Amino acid sequence: MEKPAPTTYAHDKDVHPSKLNWGETDPCVRGPVIIGRDALSINIRNAIGAYGGPYSIYRGLAVAMGDLSHNHRPNFENTQPPIEIKQQPQWSDPSKIVALDPFGHLTNEYFKKEIDEGLDIRPTIAITRAHMLVPEIQEEIRTGGIAVDGKVVVNETGELNVHKGAIDPVWYLPGVAARLKVDEDFLRRSLFENSGGMYPELITRPDLKVFLPPIGGASVYIFGNHELLSDPDVRLTVRVHDECNGSDVFGSDICTCRPYLIFGMKEAIKEAQNGGVGLIIYFRKEGRALGEVTKYLVYNARKREGDSAAKYFARTENVAGVKDMRFQALMPDILHWLGVTKIDRFTSMSNMKHDALVDAGIKVLERVPIPDELVPPDSKVEMEAKVAAGYYTNGHVPCPTELSRTVGRGWDEFHH
Amino acid sequence: MEKPAPTTYAHDKDVHPSKLNWGETDPCVRGPVIIGRDALSINIRNAIGAYGGPYSIYRGLAVAMGDLSHNHRPNFENTQPPIEIKQQPQWSDPSKIVALDPFGHLTNEYFKKEIDEGLDIRPTIAITRAHMLVPEIQEEIRTGGIAVDGKVVVNETGELNVHKGAIDPVWYLPGVAARLKVDEDFLRRSLFENSGGMYPELITRPDLKVFLPPIGGASVYIFGNHELLSDPDVRLTVRVHDECNGSDVFGSDICTCRPYLIFGMKEAIKEAQNGGVGLIIYFRKEGRALGEVTKYLVYNARKREGDSAAKYFARTENVAGVKDMRFQALMPDILHWLGVTKIDRFTSMSNMKHDALVDAGIKVLERVPIPDELVPPDSKVEMEAKVAAGYYTNGHVPCPTELSRTVGRGWDEFHH
Repeated sequence: MEKPAPTTYAHDKDVHPSKLNWGETDPCVRGPVIIGRDALSINIRNAIGAYGGPYSIYRGLAVAMGDLSHNHRPNFENTQPPIEIKQQPQWSDPSKIVALDPFGHLTNEYFKKEIDEGLDIRPTIAITRAHMLVPEIQEEIRTGGIAVDGKVVVNETGELNVHKGAIDPVWYLPGVAARLKVDEDFLRRSLFENSGGMYPELITRPDLKVFLPPIGGASVYIFGNHELLSDPDVRLTVRVHDECNGSDVFGSDICTCRPYLIFGMKEAIKEAQNGGVGLIIYFRKEGRALGEVTKYLVYNARKREGDSAAKYFARTENVAGVKDMRFQALMPDILHWLGVTKIDRFTSMSNMKHDALVDAGIKVLERVPIPDELVPPDSKVEMEAKVAAGYYTNGHVPCPTELSRTVGRGWDEFHH
Repeated sequence: MEKPAPTTYAHDKDVHPSKLNWGETDPCVRGPVIIGRDALSINIRNAIGAYGGPYSIYRGLAVAMGDLSHNHRPNFENTQPPIEIKQQPQWSDPSKIVALDPFGHLTNEYFKKEIDEGLDIRPTIAITRAHMLVPEIQEEIRTGGIAVDGKVVVNETGELNVHKGAIDPVWYLPGVAARLKVDEDFLRRSLFENSGGMYPELITRPDLKVFLPPIGGASVYIFGNHELLSDPDVRLTVRVHDECNGSDVFGSDICTCRPYLIFGMKEAIKEAQNGGVGLIIYFRKEGRALGEVTKYLVYNARKREGDSAAKYFARTENVAGVKDMRFQALMPDILHWLGVTKIDRFTSMSNMKHDALVDAGIKVLERVPIPDELVPPDSKVEMEAKVAAGYYTNGHVPCPTELSRTVGRGWDEFHH
C-alpha cells in the first residue's frame, strides 16, 4: 500500500481547486462541486466530505470487499427530476442558501461535460413522484374528513399523489458561519475537534469553502402544484418536521411527533385540494439532533426522577449539555430553494422554527397548534414544558405551579 | 487559534493508548472506549471517531456557537437501563461481536472511576421502556386479530408495552475485516478514501483498533420478557428491518417496507402473548444503505424506462454500482449481544439477512413471507425481482418471461 497522505494543505504546490463561486446565478460560472480523491479530482477538489454523507462509509466497505470498483461512475440516464424546480432569485443570494447546493438536482444537466470527462460529479438532490398510503389519512378519507378529488387524493383507497425530493446537506462554510454568527475558523476547528478529528482539511484547507458533512439530510413532500410554491398569491401550508423514529414509525406515546406530522399532512392535503400547495419537510435530526442513544438516556432520567413538565428541559441539559441541537437557523434554506416567501399556515408550535423562518425573511401568517385531541396523555409533560418555554399556543400558558402538576406516566404498570 | 495538529501517528512519542482488549470477559480488563480529543484523553485515546456518530457534527455547531462548553461532561444519574441485558458468552467471543460495544449500556457502572476522574466515557447503547400506539395494530386489536391481554397489549386503545434500545455502531476493525474477509489495512484505506479523506487516523494509527463510524445505528424493540431472549426453549419471532423513510413514515406504495414492518410487529406481539418473545431490529440503512438521493434517482430511471421486475436490479446497479450496500454480515451482532441462538419465526424474505444469521451460527427455523394481501400492487415489481434473485418464498418463483410481464405503474396518471 502506498504511503498515506493523511491530509493536504492549502499551500501544497499541486493544489489548484476548481472554481466554485457560491451564489453565482449562472451555474456554469458557479461551477460544480468536486469532492473526489481519485487521480482526476485530488488536486482540483473544491469541497471537503463525500457524496451520500454517512453512506460514504458503506461505499468504503463495498470497495474494500471488491463489490464496487473504486472508480465506478454512475450512469445518470433517466434519473433527472420529473418536474422542474425553477431557478429562483434566492439561489443566487449567498446569504439565503448556505446549507444545500441549489443546483444539486441539475448536476447532470449543467456539468455533463465534466462528468463525461470522467469527473465524479453527483446530484446532491433527487426529485421523484410517488403514491402514498397513510393509515390515519385513509381513515380520515373513509370518515369524510378529506374528500377524494382524483388529483391529490386519487381514489377511495386513499392513495395520495405527491412529488418528493431528497436533499443532502452541502454547507458553504463562510455562509454557515455568518448565519450562526460565529467565526469561520472557529467553526471549522470546532467541527473538527468535536467529531474526534474528522476531516482535518477543515483546518488545513481554508481555501476549500464547501463541506458535505456526514449527517442525514432532508426529504420534502409536495402536495399540489409545485409551480405555485413561489407564487405569493397562492396559499401554502407547511410543516417542518424533525425525525423522531420512536414516534414517527413506532408510535411512542411520550411525544406528539407522529400525531403532529400526520396532522400536518392532512392540512397540507386539504390546502392542495383547495388550489393551494401543501409542503412537508422532514429533517433527519433524531432526538433534537442529539441522537437516539442520548434521547433514551434522558427518558430514563425523566421517568426515574418523577417526570414533570417543570423539570422537563433540565433532564436533557443534564445529559446533553443543551436542550436542543437542531440549529433551525439552517432550516429555511430548503424553503428559499423552493422559492417560498410566505407561509399561510405553519403547522408547528416551535418558536425556534418560527423564529428561524422570520429571521430568514419568510413571512409566517398563521401558526397552527396540534389539536388537543391528538396529544397523547403522556406527552403532555413535553407539550406544557415547551409552551411555558415559548412554544406557540393559542391556549393557556402554564405557570410554574401548573408545570409541577403535569406529570407523566410512571413505570410501575409494567408487568415484566 | 493554536497550530492545527491534523492527525496523530502511532510512533508519536506522547501516544500511549489506554488498554482496550476486545473480547475480554471482564469489562474492567476489557477497558473503556476512550475517544475524546480533550487534554486528558488526547494521548490515551484508544478509538477513532466520536460519540453520537453523525450527531457529533451538531455538537461541533453547538460548541462553535458557545451553547455548549467544549469540556461538558454528561450527568448520567438515573439514565441506566430499566432492565438488565445480562452478559452472554457471546460478549467475549471476538468473532461474534465486532460492530457494537457489548458493554456499551454499562459504561457508567463499570467505568465510573474513570468518568469521575474526568474522562469523557459515554454509553453507546441506551435502553428504556415505552408505550406504543400504531394505527394498523390498533385496527387489528379492534377487529379481534390481536387480543388485549393487559400485558403486551395494555388496553382496548391498543397501547403496547415495549422495551427498546438504541445502539450506536462501535467497530472493532480487525474483527470487521475478518467478518468481511478483507485485509484490515485495505479496509482502513478504503474507508478513508471513499469518505473523502475522513479520519486519516484510520491509516496513521494502526494501533487504534476501534472505530465509531459516523453512520446511523440501530433500534431494538422487545415485546415480552427480555430475559427469555437467550433461552433456547422459548419461542422467538424476529424481524430485522432496514430503514425506508418513504414507506415506514410516508407510506410509499413502491415497496413493501412499512407493510412488512407492521406485519413483523404483529407477529412479534402475538409471540409475546403466547409466552414467547418478539423482537424488531430497525437499522438506519436508508435505501439499502445507498441513501435517499440515490434511491430517488433509481426510482426515476425505473419509471422512465418501463418499470419491470426483469430490469429491477440493473437500475440500481447503473446508478450505485451495486444493488445493495447493507452488509448484513455485520447485522447479527445485535442478536449475539441479546444472547439469541435461534429464531423460531423470521419475518423476512431476505436471503442476505437469512444467510448472515446462519453464517453467524444463529438457527432460523421458519421464514415467514409477507402475506400477499399486504403487498401494494406497485411493489410487485420489487417483490418478484427479489424472489427471482433468491429471496425466500413459499410460493412461485417467477421465470424471466414472467419478470418482464410484472410491470409497475407509470407516471401518466399524474394530473399536475
